[in-house]
Amino acid sequence: MSTNKERTALQLRSLVKPSGELEVSLVSVPIPVPAPSEVLVRIEAAPINPSDLGLLFGAADMSTAKVSGTASHPGVTARIPDAAMKAMAGRVGESMPVGNEGAGVVVAAGSSDAAQALMGKTVAVLGGAMYSQYRSIPVDQCILLPAGASPAEGASCFVNPLTALGMVETMRREGHTALVHTAAASNLGQMLNRICLKDHVALVNIVRKQEQQDLLRAMGATYVCNATSATFMQDLTDALVATGATIAFDATGGGKLAGQILTCMEAALNRTAKEYSRYGSTTHKQVYIYGGLDTRPTEYNRNFGMAWGMGGWLLFPFLQKIGPEAVAALKRRVAAELKTTFASHYAKAVSLAEALQLDVIAVYGKRATGEKYLINPNKGST
Amino acid sequence: MSTNKERTALQLRSLVKPSGELEVSLVSVPIPVPAPSEVLVRIEAAPINPSDLGLLFGAADMSTAKVSGTASHPGVTARIPDAAMKAMAGRVGESMPVGNEGAGVVVAAGSSDAAQALMGKTVAVLGGAMYSQYRSIPVDQCILLPAGASPAEGASCFVNPLTALGMVETMRREGHTALVHTAAASNLGQMLNRICLKDHVALVNIVRKQEQQDLLRAMGATYVCNATSATFMQDLTDALVATGATIAFDATGGGKLAGQILTCMEAALNRTAKEYSRYGSTTHKQVYIYGGLDTRPTEYNRNFGMAWGMGGWLLFPFLQKIGPEAVAALKRRVAAELKTTFASHYAKAVSLAEALQLDVIAVYGKRATGEKYLINPNKGST
Repeated sequence: MSTNKERTALQLRSLVKPSGELEVSLVSVPIPVPAPSEVLVRIEAAPINPSDLGLLFGAADMSTAKVSGTASHPGVTARIPDAAMKAMAGRVGESMPVGNEGAGVVVAAGSSDAAQALMGKTVAVLGGAMYSQYRSIPVDQCILLPAGASPAEGASCFVNPLTALGMVETMRREGHTALVHTAAASNLGQMLNRICLKDHVALVNIVRKQEQQDLLRAMGATYVCNATSATFMQDLTDALVATGATIAFDATGGGKLAGQILTCMEAALNRTAKEYSRYGSTTHKQVYIYGGLDTRPTEYNRNFGMAWGMGGWLLFPFLQKIGPEAVAALKRRVAAELKTTFASHYAKAVSLAEALQLDVIAVYGKRATGEKYLINPNKGST
Repeated sequence: MSTNKERTALQLRSLVKPSGELEVSLVSVPIPVPAPSEVLVRIEAAPINPSDLGLLFGAADMSTAKVSGTASHPGVTARIPDAAMKAMAGRVGESMPVGNEGAGVVVAAGSSDAAQALMGKTVAVLGGAMYSQYRSIPVDQCILLPAGASPAEGASCFVNPLTALGMVETMRREGHTALVHTAAASNLGQMLNRICLKDHVALVNIVRKQEQQDLLRAMGATYVCNATSATFMQDLTDALVATGATIAFDATGGGKLAGQILTCMEAALNRTAKEYSRYGSTTHKQVYIYGGLDTRPTEYNRNFGMAWGMGGWLLFPFLQKIGPEAVAALKRRVAAELKTTFASHYAKAVSLAEALQLDVIAVYGKRATGEKYLINPNKGST
């Protein structure tokens, strides 16, 4: 890094213009010099999580997407519907880096012992702006990967593993003994299934396709219900009777699914009830919506008594609530079981420039199960 | 009470038959003899609360109601739609007495001092089966009314007052400082308005009619929004900015109102936010649904970030949660402010037989604001 040219690197940015245009582009930014307690990581793998897509494309209508920029600095533009601009108000005019988490090799380190100890090591990192070729980051936001683990293997160390562990932890802390999960064949869902098998927690998996049902069963799942089946409500109620699950985590959010889960929980509780209760079961039934794969409005019939709740669930407030010691324990578990419980699978690894190609966006933008992409910002350059 | 004839009295019963027929009738039951710690109350006033209507008519289609029974023991029958019979399963074949609360005069008392002390006194009572001419009940389920208070004035001592106080108490215990209430011109809503004025708690009242808006303003309410107004969302957001209310109690349940409240809470929070938060405001926003005046499905757009909750709220679990000492304190306040803060108004007082006339049911069955009825089981007989 001796010339000016070498001191800049590519970073992906997302900008909402006051005109209602979204512009996602690659910009050249200076390679940062790590502070004493920081390390400089050459990012080699960063997943495109649903939470990243929200920041990346905002509320833009991606059917209007057009290529822009130059060959070396390609970009994409798209229209944001007027009605959606209100929710974007806070970020208008601000060019925002993207990418919650990633992994790579420490190529420079600050003067502290903790930073120096990571020199040359492969680490997983959390902290935003991971769709960058280089990222300087405090040591305490890194997880040192076990020897032999590649950046791709460690790229999803934080969001999915801590979310899946957070669901089980939330279940326990709120007094439930089994749980329900939707979009259950996702990377996150498979992880949750492995955690529950290992920890002997009963899990009811809800999917939308026969092959997802087969996949989860092959992975040892006992309860897998297909929401598109004619017998879904009956199947789900049976699984809820068998497991006693009274808390669910729903990745879809829209449509009737969250309400159907509450309806079936109530039916399961009433199936074993001994006397008529005019206000329904007194057992609290909870659905946490943690994603928005289904963008339709949420709709439910209130046929599940009065002891129920729906609400948002988000990883970071949860981590704050449980405190640093509990979080550190969860992170240690992730590192220890990285290649087993917390293994992730990706359909493809793309470069920053490839991530901005319309045909590529069309695939990963669908958020479809089994089509998760990884960005390698240094693909071809290392 | 020297002859057999005098030892029975009328009681209203609701029965769901296996055939899907609802039968509401008056039956003769023995006048109970109070146990040592009980008093026998001649019930002279019992309100028809929405919670009573649920038990009274169940899921019956009251447009199919027909008169049955005899002149001295009149009744009403109606069809329960097949789809609704599932939820009725627990009560099929069981003739159930109705009426959560009421008030009357103690005409006999058990041997305990506490019971004897109430002899001849006017008391408010909670405990079901209040649509009866006589009710024997433990002393600790009575509130001794202040001297000069009539049974009609004390008839609604429990459900509405404790519900309204419970809302303010829930607001405080969950860390909010102001609240929103829907169907705000109801007896309960007027009570809540008086409590909030007295306790200096900011309250946002949501109503559906101009005259309800006028009524509440005349009663000193500062924030009254009309949900049928074209500027409702703007008006509500303004009121939420002014009050900082982040918790709501919704009596309607169905339709879009609960979601609109969360949307406006989020807009109010973002109006003063300093930077863009991709997951929306981090302040928790809560809507508790405590009634079902609107029987349509509940529908919402998830445009209020991730820090939100919807859920059922019910008086009795709340009272259990706060414990007997806190409940006793609330009851003391109700008795002390019976003719002011907790005054109720009724459109009409009817006898048990009148309560089963189809034209009378048509009025109180609507649950319309300002049309609450009182049953006097001893009307004409005292």
